[in-house]
Amino acid sequence: TIVALLEQHFATNEILKGKKVLVTAGPTREKLDPVRFFSNHSTGKMGYALAEAARDFGADVVLISGPTSLPSPAGVQTIRVESAQDMYENVMNHFHDSDIVIKTAAVADYRPKYVADNKIKKQQEDYTVVLERTVDILQTLGKQKTHQFLVGFAAETNDVERYAKDKLARKNADMIVANNVVQEGAGFGTDTNIVTLFKRDGTEKQLPLLPKSEVAKEILREVHREIEGRL
Amino acid sequence: TIVALLEQHFATNEILKGKKVLVTAGPTREKLDPVRFFSNHSTGKMGYALAEAARDFGADVVLISGPTSLPSPAGVQTIRVESAQDMYENVMNHFHDSDIVIKTAAVADYRPKYVADNKIKKQQEDYTVVLERTVDILQTLGKQKTHQFLVGFAAETNDVERYAKDKLARKNADMIVANNVVQEGAGFGTDTNIVTLFKRDGTEKQLPLLPKSEVAKEILREVHREIEGRL
Repeated sequence: TIVALLEQHFATNEILKGKKVLVTAGPTREKLDPVRFFSNHSTGKMGYALAEAARDFGADVVLISGPTSLPSPAGVQTIRVESAQDMYENVMNHFHDSDIVIKTAAVADYRPKYVADNKIKKQQEDYTVVLERTVDILQTLGKQKTHQFLVGFAAETNDVERYAKDKLARKNADMIVANNVVQEGAGFGTDTNIVTLFKRDGTEKQLPLLPKSEVAKEILREVHREIEGRL
Repeated sequence: TIVALLEQHFATNEILKGKKVLVTAGPTREKLDPVRFFSNHSTGKMGYALAEAARDFGADVVLISGPTSLPSPAGVQTIRVESAQDMYENVMNHFHDSDIVIKTAAVADYRPKYVADNKIKKQQEDYTVVLERTVDILQTLGKQKTHQFLVGFAAETNDVERYAKDKLARKNADMIVANNVVQEGAGFGTDTNIVTLFKRDGTEKQLPLLPKSEVAKEILREVHREIEGRL
């Protein structure tokens, strides 16, 4: 019957029904003065794709996004932030309520130690900027997590597997999604990605070159399987 | 007659017919490593508005743009660049052919002196970045100009008039368009701007809060009057 088909359809698709999913996306900007900042090449596409896929799988989704040119996804609570510190505070506000936390944001590791109130004027000489560490959000979440399933991203340019496995252990994450951002078809700004999922049990799952929307679904299906496996 | 009306229409509107106009727009990005960079808040809106207005006034327009999320304007030769050095090289390639050069781009004054080939790994300690000066494009153009009418922009957060007048003289520009980027309705990312035009004869012209498209037309009308006055 149609009802049975519909039930089957929703049974297959709404695998995250009732779950609260927190996704972070995009870069952050760390001010040096009112007009200059440090940032990175993240465009937010992978995170927005994950937020949309989680919504389509029936989850309640909060997306915390650094500055991007992407529109806020329909049916997703989107919070726009600027700096690593803003990102940290907003993530902490939503962490305890979340079941799944996926940190795709390329949060700045460093910020200028001193921020000038006025635009710094040019000098002929070299100019030295001292950078200090920002809060490590993934590590903080790894320490504080109770029931949350925690997914981190590793965007590397070399030794991807070693860094990813190390990150998984050090940050107490449940999964690390790693990609080599200098690989053709992977990384920042592209509509596709090539990722490998590293899991707590030491296994890994390599995905082929896929549109970011498909990578997002595969990650969420894998997260779903892991959570089901825990029950 | 219709022909007369059309002639009148084009006579009033195509004030830059036959002129070659070079516009620079947007921020530049100065790499620290393959994923991190220095940049600024310029979105390119003022420059794109100027390129479009110059095109509508009948000019042949080349737009050299740093990274923006704006589409390339129809009927304008748009060249996309990344760094201050890319911007400099592309501007120099087009400078000698140009009649009017309008530098709205917020080109980085400084870039990291050493660029890492691989992503710099985090340390717990502070990290010191040495920045070196980039080429001053406006100053270079001011020294090399022959017939070109040279318009610079000054985005300041304080002492706008003093900096603008100083810039006009030091850079040998023909006009400086100055705005206070912290003023409400002016500066980066907004669709409006509040600018003052500083000219070589010591006079200035203050424009009210206007959409950037209207600011662009006013600037070009003023440039046109100045060029006509020279003949």
